[in-house]
Amino acid sequence: MAEYHLVQRVLFQHCDPAGIVFYPRYFEMINATVEQWFADELQYSFAKMHLTEKVGVPTAAIETNFKAPSFLEDRLDFKLQVESIGAKSVNLQLQVSCAAQLRLEAKITLVFVSLQQAVPKSILWPLDLREKFARYQSD
Amino acid sequence: MAEYHLVQRVLFQHCDPAGIVFYPRYFEMINATVEQWFADELQYSFAKMHLTEKVGVPTAAIETNFKAPSFLEDRLDFKLQVESIGAKSVNLQLQVSCAAQLRLEAKITLVFVSLQQAVPKSILWPLDLREKFARYQSD
Amino acid sequence: MAEYHLVQRVLFQHCDPAGIVFYPRYFEMINATVEQWFADELQYSFAKMHLTEKVGVPTAAIETNFKAPSFLEDRLDFKLQVESIGAKSVNLQLQVSCAAQLRLEAKITLVFVSLQQAVPKSILWPLDLREKFARYQSD
Amino acid sequence: MAEYHLVQRVLFQHCDPAGIVFYPRYFEMINATVEQWFADELQYSFAKMHLTEKVGVPTAAIETNFKAPSFLEDRLDFKLQVESIGAKSVNLQLQVSCAAQLRLEAKITLVFVSLQQAVPKSILWPLDLREKFARYQSD
Repeated sequence: MAEYHLVQRVLFQHCDPAGIVFYPRYFEMINATVEQWFADELQYSFAKMHLTEKVGVPTAAIETNFKAPSFLEDRLDFKLQVESIGAKSVNLQLQVSCAAQLRLEAKITLVFVSLQQAVPKSILWPLDLREKFARYQSD
Repeated sequence: MAEYHLVQRVLFQHCDPAGIVFYPRYFEMINATVEQWFADELQYSFAKMHLTEKVGVPTAAIETNFKAPSFLEDRLDFKLQVESIGAKSVNLQLQVSCAAQLRLEAKITLVFVSLQQAVPKSILWPLDLREKFARYQSD
Repeated sequence: MAEYHLVQRVLFQHCDPAGIVFYPRYFEMINATVEQWFADELQYSFAKMHLTEKVGVPTAAIETNFKAPSFLEDRLDFKLQVESIGAKSVNLQLQVSCAAQLRLEAKITLVFVSLQQAVPKSILWPLDLREKFARYQSD
Repeated sequence: MAEYHLVQRVLFQHCDPAGIVFYPRYFEMINATVEQWFADELQYSFAKMHLTEKVGVPTAAIETNFKAPSFLEDRLDFKLQVESIGAKSVNLQLQVSCAAQLRLEAKITLVFVSLQQAVPKSILWPLDLREKFARYQSD
């Protein structure tokens, strides 16, 4: 089964006065991982979703465990896999590591929504997208 | 039992192209809530911790459920309570609402660490801080 | 002549590994100042502009001089005044200080634009807004 | 003469409710450009400066003109050149474009400081760094 990997470098802007990554910045990096997976692997970019189709994939839930701190200049490997696929949602797993050390794990639930109402409304995934998700499903 | 409340206004910088709060920004707002609770209610500011005592309270785990989107100009009420107190950690609950509507819930585990080593090392809470935590414990 | 003041507290999220405010965070704080001035003093909020009227006030130019660093827990006073008023733009001055010490100065040019095209197009200010700007003009 | 180029992709996290890059995010991208130029081209990373040598290169002044908006998925080319070299400071020019279109220009003054005091103090550049700067000087 495929895994999606994105390497991101820890920059000055990610670090706090203790010299380690400030945890809200990890969520920016996690979102960048999901976003580039959609754009580059699933051929369904956030630009296409938001600007052309008026849909989106907001995060409904996220559960994160931080295992070890990350430091300036670290190269972090963001590994993304699909855990399960719902009719209107998908559960993702992320593991972030540097060399052999696990830094954090996250479980994310994305929902597929229409943005044509004032308040986003959940809708069914397109079939071809479900098939693409399945390729990234862990065993 | 006491609850800590902090009202934060949704600004342009928090919102994404869908016009709703981009979820990593919520974690900045959650951290600001925890930080101001420590400074203003527990009299143990992050400045005192980091600059004077070389200790910190990094987030070891956070579990968040997003219930409804937030919009530009919303006044969000961040309610913080203590769920349980460990020897070297504390579990917090946050509920974020706007008027009567719940927007998100979070459970956070903070650990108390010494920053005098290259890698932070967990240490025991000071006794008076444990007592202060207890005042914010939910039933 | 009126001046607009907004006090903002330096939080952990604003500070870098050197323990001082990371300069891109100042621009978030400057934007928050401009945004709250529009909402609270000029009665023309970014929500009203963007959501109702499909207009905006993007920053066309900004020139900033950093005079002294800011530290965790500092209370920064953002003083905003209007320097000059154009037909489709306005020049603002900001001085940011902590106690008696000047921390930074900025000159900002905002333009008034319509967002009804793919690319924003500059338009004339409403007359009543020009009158409100004039009240904040420095001598 | 050499120019440093860094391509950065406009992500969801950079964009505002108008669907264009929120200008404080450009400063994060500008800082990332400067930081990676120091690390990758000048062999003098922010990690080496801050963690090993207790020095830094804070931004003393920045002047920015925004020429055209940037949109989700744009690939922005950040071109960096050295304008002039002082004893304790350096002036940089940045031009950011997408395809043939100029999006913004910035002039930045960096100062070299010692972080061994509570308040950073400007110091002389190492000679070999001045020589490396000169290679990126525009005509």
